[in-house]
Amino acid sequence: MRIDILTLFPEVFPGPLGESIIGRAAARNLAEVNAIDLRRFTHDARGTVDDKPYGGGPGMLMKVEPLVEAVEAIRRPGTVVILTSPRGERFNQRLAAELALESHLVMIAGHYEGVDERAIELLADREVSLGDFVLTSGNLAAMVMADAIIRLLPGVLGHDESSVDESHSAGLLEYPQYTRPPEFRGLRVPEVLLSGDHGRVAEWRRSQSERLTRERRPDLWEQYLQTTEIELK
Amino acid sequence: MRIDILTLFPEVFPGPLGESIIGRAAARNLAEVNAIDLRRFTHDARGTVDDKPYGGGPGMLMKVEPLVEAVEAIRRPGTVVILTSPRGERFNQRLAAELALESHLVMIAGHYEGVDERAIELLADREVSLGDFVLTSGNLAAMVMADAIIRLLPGVLGHDESSVDESHSAGLLEYPQYTRPPEFRGLRVPEVLLSGDHGRVAEWRRSQSERLTRERRPDLWEQYLQTTEIELK
Repeated sequence: MRIDILTLFPEVFPGPLGESIIGRAAARNLAEVNAIDLRRFTHDARGTVDDKPYGGGPGMLMKVEPLVEAVEAIRRPGTVVILTSPRGERFNQRLAAELALESHLVMIAGHYEGVDERAIELLADREVSLGDFVLTSGNLAAMVMADAIIRLLPGVLGHDESSVDESHSAGLLEYPQYTRPPEFRGLRVPEVLLSGDHGRVAEWRRSQSERLTRERRPDLWEQYLQTTEIELK
Repeated sequence: MRIDILTLFPEVFPGPLGESIIGRAAARNLAEVNAIDLRRFTHDARGTVDDKPYGGGPGMLMKVEPLVEAVEAIRRPGTVVILTSPRGERFNQRLAAELALESHLVMIAGHYEGVDERAIELLADREVSLGDFVLTSGNLAAMVMADAIIRLLPGVLGHDESSVDESHSAGLLEYPQYTRPPEFRGLRVPEVLLSGDHGRVAEWRRSQSERLTRERRPDLWEQYLQTTEIELK
């Protein structure tokens, strides 16, 4: 997979994407992340990429022309263009898995003040929101999406980093986990986890996952019950 | 405000946090972001920060001792310790605004495979989730939170970058925005925005915000209607 990120700050990439699992994926050619400087697609001496909004108001908007020229220069058949936007569909594990099936993603890391609406109309295959909060720019949003997507590509996670058993993939929150030492400041690891009885361990984890999901995420719990019911039919 | 980020990858900071608005805030001493290497708080030659989970299963967990020692070394009265976790409360603009009132935040950028439950019990004032997706590490999550929080600090945004009028602060999605040129590939800026009539512009933007929120985020629209009703009473 190739991910091209159109940005005003190419120098902040790969940044956190160069570390650990994602960096290893890049080194093994499983994924390639390119930061592309939008100023390359301007035609004035100052490299103007933004301008004031028509009708007034605070902030600067990304201009339509450099965005359209940049996407046209790198788009190929099957490319999916993603704009991060508070108006977009919510990014989640399901969407990450869906996007992990594509071969080429282009992410537009907009200033969060906004993007000329016509760029969205002409370019965006998907508008995606990371959540109900405002960031200074789309660079971090693009990094987050790239990270969540790349780790799902075949071969990226080692066999002891399996993505199967974790939060959000089974529809339940993860059970509490413990590692050595068995006791720390009077807090002991639950006996069952030290028992070596795989059946009891699995049962305990299941019940803890169910309890946590019920208590903390009634919305996920409802979904989970519905899915389980459908499977039982 | 000071934000200390406990991490296994201090070298990826400040990264995107060094750019633009947040970088300027740091330069003007409005906010300070420190990455603190968790390995400094280990006592074996290899600097062991993680270990296998009791009871078996994939992945490595962050050990409790280095985390507790690190937090104890930097905590002071009033410090708020935040652990990013899929189980946590959802990060949103309201929570960002709440955390922007604190003077010292400590963020634990955990491996997403997990953290020994006792570290959470002993340290975390808040467990916070960025959303229903899985990242390779908490570094990006910590950066996202720091960015959203710092831009809300007094004096960080210039007066033409006002945070008042934007998505999520008024409870509605933002209206479409346009900048020059007035026509691009047959797509014209809506006439009203070129009219110079501030009243009509404000009315058009309001109706567009309402329409977009109704269509794309019925959940926000419901909340907005309820809040408006309460205000009218």
